[in-house]
Amino acid sequence: MIHFESDYLEGCCPQILEALRETNLEQTLGYGEDPHCAKAADMVRYVFDCPDAEVHFLVGGTQTNATVIASQLRPHQGVVCAASGHINVHETGAVEQSGHKILALPATDGKISADQVRALLEAHQRDFSREHTVQPGMVYISFPTELGTIYSKRELEALHDVCRAWDIPLFVDGARLGYGLEASGVDILPKDLARLCDIFYVGGTKQGALFGEAVVFTRSALAEDFRYLIKQHGGMLAKGRLLGLQYEVLMNEGLYFKLARHADRLADRLRAAFAAKGIPFLVENTTNQVFPILPTAALAPLAEQFGFELWQEVDDTHAGVRFCTSWATPESAIDALASYIDKNL
Amino acid sequence: MIHFESDYLEGCCPQILEALRETNLEQTLGYGEDPHCAKAADMVRYVFDCPDAEVHFLVGGTQTNATVIASQLRPHQGVVCAASGHINVHETGAVEQSGHKILALPATDGKISADQVRALLEAHQRDFSREHTVQPGMVYISFPTELGTIYSKRELEALHDVCRAWDIPLFVDGARLGYGLEASGVDILPKDLARLCDIFYVGGTKQGALFGEAVVFTRSALAEDFRYLIKQHGGMLAKGRLLGLQYEVLMNEGLYFKLARHADRLADRLRAAFAAKGIPFLVENTTNQVFPILPTAALAPLAEQFGFELWQEVDDTHAGVRFCTSWATPESAIDALASYIDKNL
Amino acid sequence: MIHFESDYLEGCCPQILEALRETNLEQTLGYGEDPHCAKAADMVRYVFDCPDAEVHFLVGGTQTNATVIASQLRPHQGVVCAASGHINVHETGAVEQSGHKILALPATDGKISADQVRALLEAHQRDFSREHTVQPGMVYISFPTELGTIYSKRELEALHDVCRAWDIPLFVDGARLGYGLEASGVDILPKDLARLCDIFYVGGTKQGALFGEAVVFTRSALAEDFRYLIKQHGGMLAKGRLLGLQYEVLMNEGLYFKLARHADRLADRLRAAFAAKGIPFLVENTTNQVFPILPTAALAPLAEQFGFELWQEVDDTHAGVRFCTSWATPESAIDALASYIDKNL
Amino acid sequence: MIHFESDYLEGCCPQILEALRETNLEQTLGYGEDPHCAKAADMVRYVFDCPDAEVHFLVGGTQTNATVIASQLRPHQGVVCAASGHINVHETGAVEQSGHKILALPATDGKISADQVRALLEAHQRDFSREHTVQPGMVYISFPTELGTIYSKRELEALHDVCRAWDIPLFVDGARLGYGLEASGVDILPKDLARLCDIFYVGGTKQGALFGEAVVFTRSALAEDFRYLIKQHGGMLAKGRLLGLQYEVLMNEGLYFKLARHADRLADRLRAAFAAKGIPFLVENTTNQVFPILPTAALAPLAEQFGFELWQEVDDTHAGVRFCTSWATPESAIDALASYIDKNL
Repeated sequence: MIHFESDYLEGCCPQILEALRETNLEQTLGYGEDPHCAKAADMVRYVFDCPDAEVHFLVGGTQTNATVIASQLRPHQGVVCAASGHINVHETGAVEQSGHKILALPATDGKISADQVRALLEAHQRDFSREHTVQPGMVYISFPTELGTIYSKRELEALHDVCRAWDIPLFVDGARLGYGLEASGVDILPKDLARLCDIFYVGGTKQGALFGEAVVFTRSALAEDFRYLIKQHGGMLAKGRLLGLQYEVLMNEGLYFKLARHADRLADRLRAAFAAKGIPFLVENTTNQVFPILPTAALAPLAEQFGFELWQEVDDTHAGVRFCTSWATPESAIDALASYIDKNL
Repeated sequence: MIHFESDYLEGCCPQILEALRETNLEQTLGYGEDPHCAKAADMVRYVFDCPDAEVHFLVGGTQTNATVIASQLRPHQGVVCAASGHINVHETGAVEQSGHKILALPATDGKISADQVRALLEAHQRDFSREHTVQPGMVYISFPTELGTIYSKRELEALHDVCRAWDIPLFVDGARLGYGLEASGVDILPKDLARLCDIFYVGGTKQGALFGEAVVFTRSALAEDFRYLIKQHGGMLAKGRLLGLQYEVLMNEGLYFKLARHADRLADRLRAAFAAKGIPFLVENTTNQVFPILPTAALAPLAEQFGFELWQEVDDTHAGVRFCTSWATPESAIDALASYIDKNL
Repeated sequence: MIHFESDYLEGCCPQILEALRETNLEQTLGYGEDPHCAKAADMVRYVFDCPDAEVHFLVGGTQTNATVIASQLRPHQGVVCAASGHINVHETGAVEQSGHKILALPATDGKISADQVRALLEAHQRDFSREHTVQPGMVYISFPTELGTIYSKRELEALHDVCRAWDIPLFVDGARLGYGLEASGVDILPKDLARLCDIFYVGGTKQGALFGEAVVFTRSALAEDFRYLIKQHGGMLAKGRLLGLQYEVLMNEGLYFKLARHADRLADRLRAAFAAKGIPFLVENTTNQVFPILPTAALAPLAEQFGFELWQEVDDTHAGVRFCTSWATPESAIDALASYIDKNL
Repeated sequence: MIHFESDYLEGCCPQILEALRETNLEQTLGYGEDPHCAKAADMVRYVFDCPDAEVHFLVGGTQTNATVIASQLRPHQGVVCAASGHINVHETGAVEQSGHKILALPATDGKISADQVRALLEAHQRDFSREHTVQPGMVYISFPTELGTIYSKRELEALHDVCRAWDIPLFVDGARLGYGLEASGVDILPKDLARLCDIFYVGGTKQGALFGEAVVFTRSALAEDFRYLIKQHGGMLAKGRLLGLQYEVLMNEGLYFKLARHADRLADRLRAAFAAKGIPFLVENTTNQVFPILPTAALAPLAEQFGFELWQEVDDTHAGVRFCTSWATPESAIDALASYIDKNL
């Protein structure tokens, strides 16, 4: 059985395991006030070329999203996002639990446009009854999106411009950031990301770490008192150095990007294997998630040998499914699946 | 420099490190639905002799407290606790963030009594204006308390009785549970704890794990839909097997209790060293935290060689300080500190 | 200038003003524990033929919706409603402020169907990742809807059946309840409403009272501790007898329904006047709100003599607008507007 | 039976009733955007000599407190108040429902001092673990307090100074503001209040209105988007002109203060009657609430003729009780009670 259900099936990259072993008996202060976190924050600033940024480390994505959003909004404000956005769909209402409405916009391939955001902001401003509605207070996008698509530099610049013009922060969920930045066709460099958004995070959980998300506030004023909020949201790890440590490893010599590149390349092989058989996709993309549309009848036999996720029904006889590659996927797993595709689909 | 500032200064016990290494490339489902969590839950049920309990694993204490409390209360209900309780003092208002008032009672050596709780419940019931006040909806205690003291079986039985009589859950914060259960003079067995409270947790973070708290709902009805709440509160670790794995190790052959016993014994040595010099304590206790009252003038020289925490001022010339031992404290650290005490205090 | 902007432009029906005058110097207990509230609750139970119901009085609609919803849901649950529902659109996120997501369904003429609700509930139940999503915990509908349409008895029975089958409460926003129950073509009697939903309210603010909404819990178990929640949400009026008093007047000899009938009849006249000129409507309805689609060019001259509300743009040259009649609208106002329509549109 | 249980036993002063009658058929915009609210706001600004203030009208006190506090605090901040403060004791956790902890200080006769507040702020700032605790974000006091006492100008100036020095708002609950400003011995003028605090409200409910609280933001920056918050908290009355109307009446020719003066003077008579018999008081005060300590045995016979509230037990044979006078109390009621005191106590 070969698994492609998600990109968090395994533990962590061996370098992290080794670092855990080496540092295990070090004695450090807790709660992220240790040298590893300090150094890792420096490395993140360096890699993303944002020397004035403030960097914080949290454990997981839902926690990070809810904490960042709560830190930026006043009570009557909501967060604009794609209807397919993770915060709107798969976080059990964590944002609402903090008191904020999600202002969901229809997504195209998982993305929203600057025009949509501007139209929403203008409509709110024009509305005579606007005080009876939730005020848009920030914009959330995922990079890559939940469908594995990526914003172009032009699209991101446009979103940046509208957010800056309306003075609301642009927040990028980077749970799979590396897979996005390394994807073929992407024209956004790490430093572009830091320049074009106000807050983003460098996802670790899905990219080689045991867990961890590094939140970057590109303007430190936005991070005021953020540590209080981390603590309040239950995200302040007692042994915080575990987070710093992992990011020291990942940011070292581009490991984070190398691991992502590996996964993207394997996903490309997979896409090619499906395409060679004329199999269409739910969405065109170049990151580590692959969404072929398969005959429903083909799923059961396929599932005997390969793990994948049912994504959505397409019609009575076809369904879109998801295969994920990751930093941990061996080349041989792709060989096996490509061969199966070639012979059986 | 020898550190006694807290019991979470190091990484984890070597057995956990080894288990991480061994299982690193296993592929498992995420979010706690893996075989390691299933097995660890069984082991917790076995060790605490509560075969019908439901067990969930979370990452940290603040997160666990807020999630459990939110899962039990209706919006108009509050949680009764000692004024010195962790949820009231050191969690940045996480309980209030979920909408609930903390009904703090004056503590004696960190503890509250059944009589205090009963009096509060009766006063609320008698109050003609009770609908204008927060309804007591559950009771939270720490075992051991934030001052390292422990409830006797009789005290815990009395709390259990009043909670059962009023039909509100008794919740035990067990962030340092092992240190309490292994302390000299304690008359509560693991199975007593499971019998006498409704919900408790077996703290891992401070007792040998990298992180993790195992929440035990001794009556499974109390755990209805708890996984939704874990997710909503950002506590559902993607690679949940890391939690199961650590508890498999800790519950195996009594390791959890052995590690705690070690720390308690070293703390006893420390208490003896202070007592031998006639140094009084903020509180009498037998767990892994030691609270001597030292001359303020003695603190600076002491701090050059030993790390500890300033706890509270006692008078103009004396302060209470805290020394923590842990599963990781070597005997030699105690030798050095005992020798210092003997010669310098 | 004749105003049709809303149904809360004036003060109150003269009978209420008189009752205020007569009882002004009575001394009563506060917070709804007075004889007027007790008697009014009895009258509501009698009129809606629900002798076992529990009745509470609140001041306004947004407050009532947020309080009722918070009283019924656990933290991980959301409320299902039409995308056009008042709680989703015009309450500044009050429901989310209480921590709950609104699960909005596409509406048809302001209504949702039992099939839609059932499909949502089944999809949630089927979802392997359901714990990552918000659990549907109750259903909210408006009667009449925000577009002035009404559910038929068959439609309401179907919603009742699916809610009962899934054991979640059906909550009816009755801000304009009387206008709905008195509309031509409606086949729902007051007692049907009480039988078919779990919680509803009898709106006063828009139907002749100065303010006030009477919430009816048709099964008293659903109202447990509701007064605590009213107080917590700031809805417990100190001089609660003002609420009881108004409902005593409104429930007396069918006044509430007479006032509504008057408004509905005048709205019918208005609809006939538009229809006679071939003017189409945004929606077909029979209650006190009228939504003609007018040429944009006609709006400015019309607005010089008549107040109305711009509802939505239809195309480049047409817009849907809203005219409201109320208990207070004089026949002469309709005469004037009908005459204008006949001559100018 | 003569009632002194509270100062909200009756309806409203006759001038308000008359204004309601006169304006009943006026047609106005809803939600506080009507000429009456505009004019009343001007009058409040004039009376309190704060021409740049922003004034908003809400319905009740709990609602006002929760809304104002939510408008000023970030999520990790709490509100400092006296342990006996209304928000801490009698609002069913409304502040916590909005996510904020109340940082209660021990009160002296219902008051807190600038020194207490400064000490709390300094201790927070000094605390190395402050991010684990709730940050003090504003100060709430009641004027008069829940015990009917009043802050002197010197005390209020000191609180103002510490709040300004730490840049946190000082918020004054003025549910009984007039009774405080008119009390004998008070040295604070309306304009002093407006100068010395950041936000206060002019209570109507307990001082002659049917309901209503006029919130004054002395610096308009503090009121940014406050109407969104009113709506979200369910405090935006549809027929908002009812609030404006009442304040037009109350602010006209000093009526608000005349009504308060009447009540304070009658309370003085009551205090004198008790004092003449050597009866002690729970607290020395000069406002409309009187707190004699009576023999428990005397309560039942007294209660047959006079309504009052049991406040707190003092010892086995004595209890403190509360008598309230109000704008509506007739002189004859005091005659009767004074005579009873003279003869029977």
